[in-house]
This record gives sequence, structure tokens and C-alpha cells, in this order.
Amino acid sequence: MPQTSPLKVAVCQYAPQLGAPEGNADRGARWIARAADAGAQLIVLPELASSGYAFTSETEASASAQGAEGPCLQSWVASCRELGVYVVAGFCERAAEGRFNSAALLGPDGLIGIYRKAHLFYEEQTYFQPGNRGFPVFDLPFGKVGMLVCYDLWFPEAARLLALAGADVICVPTNWVANFRRRVVDERGWVMGNYASVAVATQNQVFVAAADRIGREHEVEFIGGSCIVGPEGWLLAGPASRADEALLLADLDLRQAASRKQRTPRNHAFRDRRPDLYRELGSTSAPASE
Amino acid sequence: MPQTSPLKVAVCQYAPQLGAPEGNADRGARWIARAADAGAQLIVLPELASSGYAFTSETEASASAQGAEGPCLQSWVASCRELGVYVVAGFCERAAEGRFNSAALLGPDGLIGIYRKAHLFYEEQTYFQPGNRGFPVFDLPFGKVGMLVCYDLWFPEAARLLALAGADVICVPTNWVANFRRRVVDERGWVMGNYASVAVATQNQVFVAAADRIGREHEVEFIGGSCIVGPEGWLLAGPASRADEALLLADLDLRQAASRKQRTPRNHAFRDRRPDLYRELGSTSAPASE
Repeated sequence: MPQTSPLKVAVCQYAPQLGAPEGNADRGARWIARAADAGAQLIVLPELASSGYAFTSETEASASAQGAEGPCLQSWVASCRELGVYVVAGFCERAAEGRFNSAALLGPDGLIGIYRKAHLFYEEQTYFQPGNRGFPVFDLPFGKVGMLVCYDLWFPEAARLLALAGADVICVPTNWVANFRRRVVDERGWVMGNYASVAVATQNQVFVAAADRIGREHEVEFIGGSCIVGPEGWLLAGPASRADEALLLADLDLRQAASRKQRTPRNHAFRDRRPDLYRELGSTSAPASE
Repeated sequence: MPQTSPLKVAVCQYAPQLGAPEGNADRGARWIARAADAGAQLIVLPELASSGYAFTSETEASASAQGAEGPCLQSWVASCRELGVYVVAGFCERAAEGRFNSAALLGPDGLIGIYRKAHLFYEEQTYFQPGNRGFPVFDLPFGKVGMLVCYDLWFPEAARLLALAGADVICVPTNWVANFRRRVVDERGWVMGNYASVAVATQNQVFVAAADRIGREHEVEFIGGSCIVGPEGWLLAGPASRADEALLLADLDLRQAASRKQRTPRNHAFRDRRPDLYRELGSTSAPASE
């Protein structure tokens, strides 16, 4: 059961720097300290916060990859230990099976777990292996945490599986990009990732905390818009601006998510599902029409 | 392949009347005529447009149920024939297996197909059987059409299955209600059904045309907000107002949906899926945690 007192969550929106792992370790540590100073217990950093995003060569990608025991994650573990907080951070993972676009869950006692991005966007397909460990959920003292990364939000199966496995809050390190969109932001300043976050929250009765980045690397333009969403689907914080650094904070009563109550006394996000009608979703022969 | 010229779609937002099937048949026919007059080729009416929504007794529900050959659908088929249009309309279906909250697809040559709502909201569980025919897609001269009804949008599996089966446009007769929500509408005038419609569109690269109703029946307050959404997730029309009748129109290039292209040359809404990781979604033993 989640704790009865609210969980203060923070999402940190800033610009990691391409090809500067030491600088990115320090930068992440400063944001963790700033969020902890504001009272946050669970802190989310952007996707690939250790490495930057827009690799242009295998050499560059390889030089930025670190293992879970590498200096970047270890410096953030040191922050967790010192400040008594938990962190979800995107990082460029070097592993025996290859390189992954991963998110690490870190706490005062060290590395808790890793999620490897399952759905790779554009040139990520050149530099990363697709995630090979499914969608794990981690039981922390305050509640259950799942992770997704960026484009994963466009695959509702992923969030659904995390929620079915008990996630109360889904942390989303992300690098939403302007590229390839005819329209990036609407008249209210929302990016499409905000809508995707809302959908995941309301369909699954979970909290969603999405930490985006800002800035530009080569031709890739990042768009900010970080947000925190509650299980009824309404935004609790954000969207952050498109261009500026931002620290978003919200107090989450995780018991709201754990109930999975879908509004009425007779409805439930999971018991109302019809898995008897869903079999094809897990079929590898499902159509992929042109 | 969808037709190369745009499809003009209409959603009709109005108030069907509880316990007045003849009046509802006429009311629907008038809206079909009005939409056809505006050039619409595919016209969506609200959920339970034949019967109204808030039944308070078995007698009332039973008296409002009609078969596919009943006078209400037949009068709308007559409209389709006369005007050369296609209609998706919610209706209270009397069938051999029981009563269903259904959507009918009608055309100039008669009844084309029926979808029976799979996910029942609140008191619907008293008056209807859950849908027992899955999520069919119908191949029309202009493209492929799927149907969902209201609460189905909170189960992303349903829209995903329609899209995987080739749907270019998902028509959604709906009766979104204010009841049980702490917050019904946001500062921009969006109801949560708008967000759910956007999510379905962007995740599946389909068009979504959601026809809601207005008014009140007993304790149930309907909230309007009908909308039409394109595959990139941006609204093409709506949200309609919370209280007034509305006819929304949009020109849809269904080829946009049929490509399933997810923005970049290397991404695709379906080929990027990871069914190897999704097996549990179709498992009837999937957890339904409290």
C-alpha cells in the first residue's frame, strides 16, 4: 500500500550537453539538490541526461555510454544517499548485450532498477538496442514506481502493463522533439506529449511525471513542456515552457492511483477490461499494415 | 486504399429524449439531413440516440430497445438511401442474446454492421449485456470505419485493435457525463473525453469523430464537447460547447491514417510495436489489483 502522506515529486527540465558526461553528472546532481531542497522525495531527470541525445557517430555514442556502476549514475546515487531522495534519470547504458536508451531508478542505498526503452524513435534505432526487459515496476517505501521513456507513451500497451503490474506513478524521462511535426505546440502551449501523458494517466488511473529537456543539438530541437498529471487526467503541474529551465513540483496521494477506481462505485480501470477481446495485442503475427 | 479526395465527416451534438423512440427517430433523421445538406458523407450521431440514456427500470429499457430491423434504424437507413450518405448512430439494441448498447453503421443499401459496446459504464451494467463481438472494421467506398462507444475510449486496447484491423476513422457515439467527476471541464473548455480522443488518434494514427450529447436525464448531466481529431492528435473541429446543439464538420484525408507513418521515415505506429512484450494484455489472468 502507498504511504498515506502525499509524495512530493519533482520533474527537472533543463539541457544536458552532448558529449560531456562529467558536466552532465554535475548538472544532474545540481538539479537533484535543487529539487530535494524544494522538498521532493522522488525526482525525475530527462532522457539521456548522462549523455545528451543527438549522436552523429558510433564513436560518439560509445564514448558517452556508461554502465550502471559508471561515474554518472554513481554520482547521482551519492546525491540520493546524501539527500535521502529517489531519482529516475535517463542515461546512455553500456551493457553486455549492447547499448540501451535506459532509465535508472536510484535511491539512498544505490541502484534499484533499470528500464530499457522498448520503442526507439528515429536515429535512436542506429545507436541503441531495443529494450529487452519488459516493463518492470519497483516497490518503494512510498508506493510503486514504473518508468517509460518518451516515444513509449505512443504505445499505450506499455503504460497499461506498468499499471497492471501495480505502478502508482509512471516516471517519464523524455526528449520530445519538434522535428517531423507540422505543428509542435497548440494555442494553449501544449505539446503532443502532454496529451499522451494525460491519456496514460486517465486510462490507467496512475500519476505521470514527465521530465523533458530544452535546447538544441545539431538539427534536433527539443521542446520542453514537462508535466505532472493526476489519475483523473488533469494536469497537476506544467506544461513547463518550451525554452526555459523549470522545476515542477506536485504532491501526489498515491492511494488515489492504487484504488484503480474509475469514477463510479461500479467501475474499475482493470476489472472493466475485456482481455477476452484483446488477445491479438500480444500476438507477434498482429497485422502491420502499410 | 482510402479515396484520394477528402471525406467530409459530421458529428451531430444534440439531446435525444428518454423514452421517446419515435421522436428520436425523427430527431436523428433531421440531423442526418442537416449534416448531408452541409456536404457530409459520413455522419455520427450520439450514443443511444434511439432511446435516451438514463433508464430507471427494466420496463423502460425494454420498451426502448429495437432490433436492427426496427423502425428507428430503418428510418435512418431511409435517410441514407435518400441522401446518399453513411451514418454511425448509437442505439439500444434488442437481440436474441440480450440487450446491448450498440452503434450501427448504416448506408444507402441498408445496415452494414453493428458494434456492441464492450466496456459498460455504471448503471449500463444493469441494463445491457457487455459487447460480445469484438471490434469490427468495415470497408466502405471511402475507407475503413471502426466504432467505439464512450467509456471504450478509456480502454486503449479497443482503439488499438480497430487500428490494427485497418480502421482509418473511428466513429464514437458517446454520452459523456459530468457525474462522479470532481472536475468536468478545464479552463480551455475541454472535457476528459477530448483528451481521450486525442490520445487514440495520435497513438494509432487514425481520425476520431466523437458525437456527444447535451442535456439532462434524471440525475445524469451530459456535457457536450463533441470533437473531430486528426492522426497527428490535433483537433480538426470542436470541442463543441457544453450545453448547445452543434454540427461539427471536417474534411479528412484518410490516406494520412492509412500510412500509419509515425512522423519520421523510420517510425511506424504498428511496426514499432513490441508484441513480444505485450503478451499479458490478452491474458484473462492479468491482475486486477484492488
